[in-house]
Amino acid sequence: MRILLGSGGLSTEERRKAWRDAFETFLGKVERVLFVPWALEDHDGYVRMMVERGFTAGRALDSIHRAKDPKAAVRDAQAVLVGGGNTWRLLDRVQKAGVLPLLRRRVAAGLPYVGISAGTNLACPSIRTTNDMPICELRSTAALGLVPFQINAHFTDGAYFIRHGARYRPYGGETREVRLLEFLEENPGPVLALREGAILHVEGAKARLVGPGGGRLYARGKPPRDLAPGLDVSFLLRAKR
Amino acid sequence: MRILLGSGGLSTEERRKAWRDAFETFLGKVERVLFVPWALEDHDGYVRMMVERGFTAGRALDSIHRAKDPKAAVRDAQAVLVGGGNTWRLLDRVQKAGVLPLLRRRVAAGLPYVGISAGTNLACPSIRTTNDMPICELRSTAALGLVPFQINAHFTDGAYFIRHGARYRPYGGETREVRLLEFLEENPGPVLALREGAILHVEGAKARLVGPGGGRLYARGKPPRDLAPGLDVSFLLRAKR
Repeated sequence: MRILLGSGGLSTEERRKAWRDAFETFLGKVERVLFVPWALEDHDGYVRMMVERGFTAGRALDSIHRAKDPKAAVRDAQAVLVGGGNTWRLLDRVQKAGVLPLLRRRVAAGLPYVGISAGTNLACPSIRTTNDMPICELRSTAALGLVPFQINAHFTDGAYFIRHGARYRPYGGETREVRLLEFLEENPGPVLALREGAILHVEGAKARLVGPGGGRLYARGKPPRDLAPGLDVSFLLRAKR
Repeated sequence: MRILLGSGGLSTEERRKAWRDAFETFLGKVERVLFVPWALEDHDGYVRMMVERGFTAGRALDSIHRAKDPKAAVRDAQAVLVGGGNTWRLLDRVQKAGVLPLLRRRVAAGLPYVGISAGTNLACPSIRTTNDMPICELRSTAALGLVPFQINAHFTDGAYFIRHGARYRPYGGETREVRLLEFLEENPGPVLALREGAILHVEGAKARLVGPGGGRLYARGKPPRDLAPGLDVSFLLRAKR
């Protein structure tokens, strides 16, 4: 399997460059990329934004929302890129288009899969480590299961702060760490939390954290531990489901 | 119906005092309160914390997790207090205990209902405006529907910030407003967003925002608008489902 999963949060030039470089290298000889814009409402606008921001790696993007037959589009794709937005809406549309099992089979057979943020969540066994608001009622949160562990995208350490004029006050809701420890209370895990800008690159039995940010690993019965940028995390691919 | 719904975020003395005052006044002659601690894993610890922090308004708390028969506990309660934590776990446990329809009927017939954070989400038609991680697979997100609109607790304006040493950088994920506008793309709404410390007090056909913070109203086809602390929001009780 060949998989590239970005955490999102491409708000700095360092992160954008790391993403463009990783994406370009990953695609190699691929000339056309099937784009899945379903996590946002405005599909045409999403395609335009990807082109304008230079997130196409110079390849042609064929958006699945313009395909007459989404299943045929998945069957014929050279590579697939699933964009960010709301993960619940993304999975809802993937379920309704009936392409989930086909996409899973094709990636297992070698189709390069690239996800950003919501697209990264979709690659996990379920979307139950998403940060997104559950705006769609789903019949199941089961997702592609391309990797045997959960990922939390846009991971942040410690409390959020809210700006009040020139001052910053901590947000009173749960920190991300509290939320992920709650997840482990109800589910076996493990969860790979990816800081903003971090990217997980999987090639067969090898997995590595690329880009800035690094990650943090949450596993039952073990204290959370930081994973440095560049670290080989192939051991995660052997996680039990 | 008599309902008191807090946004949570009781991290300042102003907010805690407002909550204690509203809760005390709301309870009136009620002597015992049925407490629902299911949103957290440690039920005994939750009861202890409520007592230690003075969130009992001097009343006896009977926790539903110690009841031999949860349905009987709901049937016999003088008032119910549903605490915060993870909303998905709360609804999961409420569904599994089979008390959702009974609780709905009793509150409709006059049982005073008090919710904080997750307990506030439970009072809505569904929990699909929660901020919490979906750590439990639910058969349905339908909740008590005590009010005919959605509430978003712990509402914050603008971006979150993350502290890096002495500096603050904006978080790259969605703002709460973006998430709520996404909700309206998929659902009719409206959504009453309650800032931290804000409380919604419903007495029959009257509803008012009490405590500090105030709210912000999200309705389809209208620009979001701020609702000041103290505002009469009875019009929301006439929202169409």
